[in-house]
Amino acid sequence: MRTTSVGVFKIATKGPGDVSGLMSLIGSGAIDPASILAILGKTEGNGGVNDFTREYAVAALCAALAPKLGLTPHAVEQRIAFVMSGGTEGVLSPHITVFTRREAERPANMSGKRLSIGMAQTRDFLPEELGRSAQITETAKAVKAAMEDAGISDASDVHFVQIKCPLLTSERVEAAAARGHKTATISAYGSMAYSRGASALGVAVALGEIAADVRDEDVLRRYDLFSKVASTSSGIELMHNVVIVLGNSGASASEFEIGHAVMSDAIDAAAVTEALNSVGLSVGLGAPAKAGREFVNVLAKAEASPDGTVRGLRHTMLEDTDISSTRHARAAVGGLIAGLAATGAVYVSGGAEHQGPAGGGPVAVIARLSD
Amino acid sequence: MRTTSVGVFKIATKGPGDVSGLMSLIGSGAIDPASILAILGKTEGNGGVNDFTREYAVAALCAALAPKLGLTPHAVEQRIAFVMSGGTEGVLSPHITVFTRREAERPANMSGKRLSIGMAQTRDFLPEELGRSAQITETAKAVKAAMEDAGISDASDVHFVQIKCPLLTSERVEAAAARGHKTATISAYGSMAYSRGASALGVAVALGEIAADVRDEDVLRRYDLFSKVASTSSGIELMHNVVIVLGNSGASASEFEIGHAVMSDAIDAAAVTEALNSVGLSVGLGAPAKAGREFVNVLAKAEASPDGTVRGLRHTMLEDTDISSTRHARAAVGGLIAGLAATGAVYVSGGAEHQGPAGGGPVAVIARLSD
Amino acid sequence: MRTTSVGVFKIATKGPGDVSGLMSLIGSGAIDPASILAILGKTEGNGGVNDFTREYAVAALCAALAPKLGLTPHAVEQRIAFVMSGGTEGVLSPHITVFTRREAERPANMSGKRLSIGMAQTRDFLPEELGRSAQITETAKAVKAAMEDAGISDASDVHFVQIKCPLLTSERVEAAAARGHKTATISAYGSMAYSRGASALGVAVALGEIAADVRDEDVLRRYDLFSKVASTSSGIELMHNVVIVLGNSGASASEFEIGHAVMSDAIDAAAVTEALNSVGLSVGLGAPAKAGREFVNVLAKAEASPDGTVRGLRHTMLEDTDISSTRHARAAVGGLIAGLAATGAVYVSGGAEHQGPAGGGPVAVIARLSD
Amino acid sequence: MRTTSVGVFKIATKGPGDVSGLMSLIGSGAIDPASILAILGKTEGNGGVNDFTREYAVAALCAALAPKLGLTPHAVEQRIAFVMSGGTEGVLSPHITVFTRREAERPANMSGKRLSIGMAQTRDFLPEELGRSAQITETAKAVKAAMEDAGISDASDVHFVQIKCPLLTSERVEAAAARGHKTATISAYGSMAYSRGASALGVAVALGEIAADVRDEDVLRRYDLFSKVASTSSGIELMHNVVIVLGNSGASASEFEIGHAVMSDAIDAAAVTEALNSVGLSVGLGAPAKAGREFVNVLAKAEASPDGTVRGLRHTMLEDTDISSTRHARAAVGGLIAGLAATGAVYVSGGAEHQGPAGGGPVAVIARLSD
Repeated sequence: MRTTSVGVFKIATKGPGDVSGLMSLIGSGAIDPASILAILGKTEGNGGVNDFTREYAVAALCAALAPKLGLTPHAVEQRIAFVMSGGTEGVLSPHITVFTRREAERPANMSGKRLSIGMAQTRDFLPEELGRSAQITETAKAVKAAMEDAGISDASDVHFVQIKCPLLTSERVEAAAARGHKTATISAYGSMAYSRGASALGVAVALGEIAADVRDEDVLRRYDLFSKVASTSSGIELMHNVVIVLGNSGASASEFEIGHAVMSDAIDAAAVTEALNSVGLSVGLGAPAKAGREFVNVLAKAEASPDGTVRGLRHTMLEDTDISSTRHARAAVGGLIAGLAATGAVYVSGGAEHQGPAGGGPVAVIARLSD
Repeated sequence: MRTTSVGVFKIATKGPGDVSGLMSLIGSGAIDPASILAILGKTEGNGGVNDFTREYAVAALCAALAPKLGLTPHAVEQRIAFVMSGGTEGVLSPHITVFTRREAERPANMSGKRLSIGMAQTRDFLPEELGRSAQITETAKAVKAAMEDAGISDASDVHFVQIKCPLLTSERVEAAAARGHKTATISAYGSMAYSRGASALGVAVALGEIAADVRDEDVLRRYDLFSKVASTSSGIELMHNVVIVLGNSGASASEFEIGHAVMSDAIDAAAVTEALNSVGLSVGLGAPAKAGREFVNVLAKAEASPDGTVRGLRHTMLEDTDISSTRHARAAVGGLIAGLAATGAVYVSGGAEHQGPAGGGPVAVIARLSD
Repeated sequence: MRTTSVGVFKIATKGPGDVSGLMSLIGSGAIDPASILAILGKTEGNGGVNDFTREYAVAALCAALAPKLGLTPHAVEQRIAFVMSGGTEGVLSPHITVFTRREAERPANMSGKRLSIGMAQTRDFLPEELGRSAQITETAKAVKAAMEDAGISDASDVHFVQIKCPLLTSERVEAAAARGHKTATISAYGSMAYSRGASALGVAVALGEIAADVRDEDVLRRYDLFSKVASTSSGIELMHNVVIVLGNSGASASEFEIGHAVMSDAIDAAAVTEALNSVGLSVGLGAPAKAGREFVNVLAKAEASPDGTVRGLRHTMLEDTDISSTRHARAAVGGLIAGLAATGAVYVSGGAEHQGPAGGGPVAVIARLSD
Repeated sequence: MRTTSVGVFKIATKGPGDVSGLMSLIGSGAIDPASILAILGKTEGNGGVNDFTREYAVAALCAALAPKLGLTPHAVEQRIAFVMSGGTEGVLSPHITVFTRREAERPANMSGKRLSIGMAQTRDFLPEELGRSAQITETAKAVKAAMEDAGISDASDVHFVQIKCPLLTSERVEAAAARGHKTATISAYGSMAYSRGASALGVAVALGEIAADVRDEDVLRRYDLFSKVASTSSGIELMHNVVIVLGNSGASASEFEIGHAVMSDAIDAAAVTEALNSVGLSVGLGAPAKAGREFVNVLAKAEASPDGTVRGLRHTMLEDTDISSTRHARAAVGGLIAGLAATGAVYVSGGAEHQGPAGGGPVAVIARLSD
């Protein structure tokens, strides 16, 4: 059996174009650029359709990594999975998390399953397939392929599935119309939700969290259908889904471990606590972590609950014409998670359609085991 | 000695103009309108200069209370202290908290100090006095008068001092200029911070938290000078400060108690926990409160730390031209407090200049004692 | 034949709650409160779902007019048509335009048709009827009734039809769902567009601008179907449409006249010029109006063209997650109209679905004839 | 005498990172990359402190031009003056304007002065010099050097002076404080206005529009001091001023001509008309330009008038906490200029402190002479 070692490096950034931290770690030999599999980032933009900080960050990283990898910037973008989540509202602090993977012997005395990472892609979608069953089915296939790539066979060992998925633009809507097809929505902003939602349902199908017979009309309607570990982000730069599975595997020699819980709503402090505990970390609250365990990052999704309430009380996120609800939700959930994790450098991403229950979302925690 | 009973009623609202909840409690006899001393509210606006939800809420409440009190709406506004904090970002839920006070015998077997409330006002300020030592000194005098009104002699029994203070408008700046005086700032938005800051320093002077020799140039500069219990909000509708002191007193027969802590930064979960514990409530985290103690409300202030960092990590609140930093801060701190208090109906107000340490703020909790 | 005299009073406001200008005109006898038929206003809010300045302005006006009319504020709201358009972006200046009507002899020597105004209402709509053919058909009927009320029989004499229409809220969507019906959209913000669009199509049907066989699926899709004089605004406070027809009539003794043109896109300076010219006003451009003609107000609708371009060049209004496209459009079209009319106190309202061609909108001008 | 030919190429962009239009013109030979002197652009961001579209656009252009020029991207940034103005509010359409210059014989039969361009730089400023007389004086020197570079000796031949100037960051403020110096403001956003204002005053001094004895306290206060042709933009990426002078010169063999007028306020349609006329173009208004004259671009500055009114009527731009006043002003003035120029691809930049009278701004027009 192939055994791998997965590394996780969290690096603060000074702006979307700042690559100095990563370059410094490569320069010191701490990171072998050839081992970089994926980079998840929080950038300063608004997380909406016109958030150019995401593509700027990717462009800057590709330009910087190109000479290190002997590739063109474009080839770097094909090789490494870049997932930039725009929006560092409130106390959220811009940073990137670099995931590396290399073949490695697993020490005989290593105990327990360790962090593993796997990747796969779907085929390109047609505009009219976005937010519908075609996207769900193809995503489910890719999740299974990514699990295999990660050396994970048991769905319960999967703790976070990050997906990058397409969105609709006016051009894409018109292209579909020209072929006689109607897209799920004609709004660019609205299509982000459809694509995220269908992708998350694909994860749920793959992991057996829901039955496979999801219908087009269930997307963004049947919020009782969801995955507890899916995190999906839509971007303009691709027409297929990129799937990254994070879990624990006996074939991993990593010094990291991942666990998760599900926030049932946006103020579910208990779930954040449970997720921290699941990897041996005590609740932040200012207290130090358990001996031999070091906090690395939280990966979570946030959204304004679609019924307009949190625990029976009205929220105003969905009716604010000045600030999009995704910005509100990231700020609030980011505030809670940062408080419990004792740091603002956490990955909290907006738009949790079918990712956790309505108004809630998955929350995963990565810890380093130093013993 | 005069003994009083203070009541606290938290009422959800459906909009800034919604007075139905209060009217219903008056109708049922639960609230005697003549006993209403102050109403603190969270309204839906942006909390900035053009937040008209605050004056709309006050207008609606005054119009509704006028016939109940046999007064004109204008006279109601003079009689009751209305403090509307605009901005229900994130999970914050619009509501009002009504404070009532009436003379009452304190039962012989009542134990401990109980919630007491006192009020006082300063004289009207000149525009050029705002944000400067005149405002500090006059506010300090009013705080002492309000303590006396509350039957509190020991500064350590004061747990929250809510102040309503003026701001500058173009007209006020020009009026000062016409008399040959320069105001602290010519920006309306900027003057809100100056007025809040000087008012908070007045509280700190009154309670002996800092020395009385604060200079004009210390305002919004020397952030090591602050009060741990001041909460100040500026509004366009007045030119004097209204001071409301909330504390515990042996002369109170109230069934409520108040306590507080100080958040040292925007993610200080430990301080929120300490404040909840101080009135016998266990940390929210989904757990039920201690027997005989019921959570009523949190009163807290939030701000973006002026040095641009939280625990050494960069935040982006001060550099966001799309969302004002006060909105960011309310959303994030509101998310944390709502998570720990298990409800979004908490009073989290923005702009914490000299209210708690830079980037932090006071957090008070009111509990009802049912035993 | 009944002949009427219609008065038009444009009054600057200092805030959404400012009624002092109107009260002053009533006090001086310039306006008889009993003659007030409709008040159109531009208020300071964002024009979106959470724009409370509109209801605040209406509440303030009703409270102020109630004693003058010997009615309760609620009865005032039933009697007078209040249409508040939120959003004074850019140079737009907050103001109200008061329309009065009274029976009056038409002088024998009066020449030409003069400004006339008529009103009518539809029945209440069910939530699932909004944005669909039921709303179109009922609106068309009400437009004809309002024309009759205005003494206008020829559709070409109608120059502006202002409609106030409902929107969907979560509660309304759920009420429909509980009865087994799906609404046109589940988004509150999105429903504003549907309701405005269907109402405008109702005007087009009534005036013979389009055929009567509009289908549900044409709304917000077939933008080649539109009215050249419809202006529709949705608000949360009603479930029926209120229709105000403005035109010229031989039965009017008014000293005012109205004309209109249609902006084919958001930069159609020629159409604004044509509308000014149509009532004898020369193009603003700093030049004085024609002798005997005085500019009163422009009534116009603005929108971001749904195809994402203006004269072939890309605009970014529809992809801005920070500022809603309606705010962008009001600011830009308001800037153009204010430039040509030489004042920012013009009524430019957002959301022009089926009101003028896609990306354009109606532009009417009212002038006073002093000769 | 050296004679030059200046070229002007306006290129629509599909996003801040889109360089395809420029690359295509270089590929076809229409533009010699070595002749590029300056690139002015309108990008999609918010034009504020956190507008990363400007640096992204510059990074993309430098990366694309580097191989064409045989330079590193960094060296390209040193060689070409990039001025990116963020904010395409309303109908403004993202684009770049490329200015080229090469030595060229002036044809004997060429009539009149033609478009000429010159550049110069100041020394680096200390943070405490920004917004004060040092910046004014040094800028004035650089303007004179740039005039000489442009072959312009008469100030009346200067029609637009574009300046790129620094802003303050927290680090820069602290660096000054560490050396015992106070900066003009401690706000990053506020410093943009100070730097723009002082730079504009430098232009006014150089061109003799005002006396040279401007004091520190006049900046952002004495708005009667201004330049009619200055356009200044602040950016985080530099600590010196870059000055670009555009005017007409007898030593130019260009097929372009430039003229200007001054908008006295944000709705000054007459000034826009005058500027168009000054280079032989008839007012847009849909009408075709004069024979032999082709419209190229408008270069203008916009701002919210600091006294809160436009022609005596209140505007709300300065009191909007949701949208910055610069965004409002660009949208409104952009709407007017686009209407009169019949295109949204115009360069309207925000923040016109001391650039034109308070609330107004310079407006220059470039035309191509095809005869």
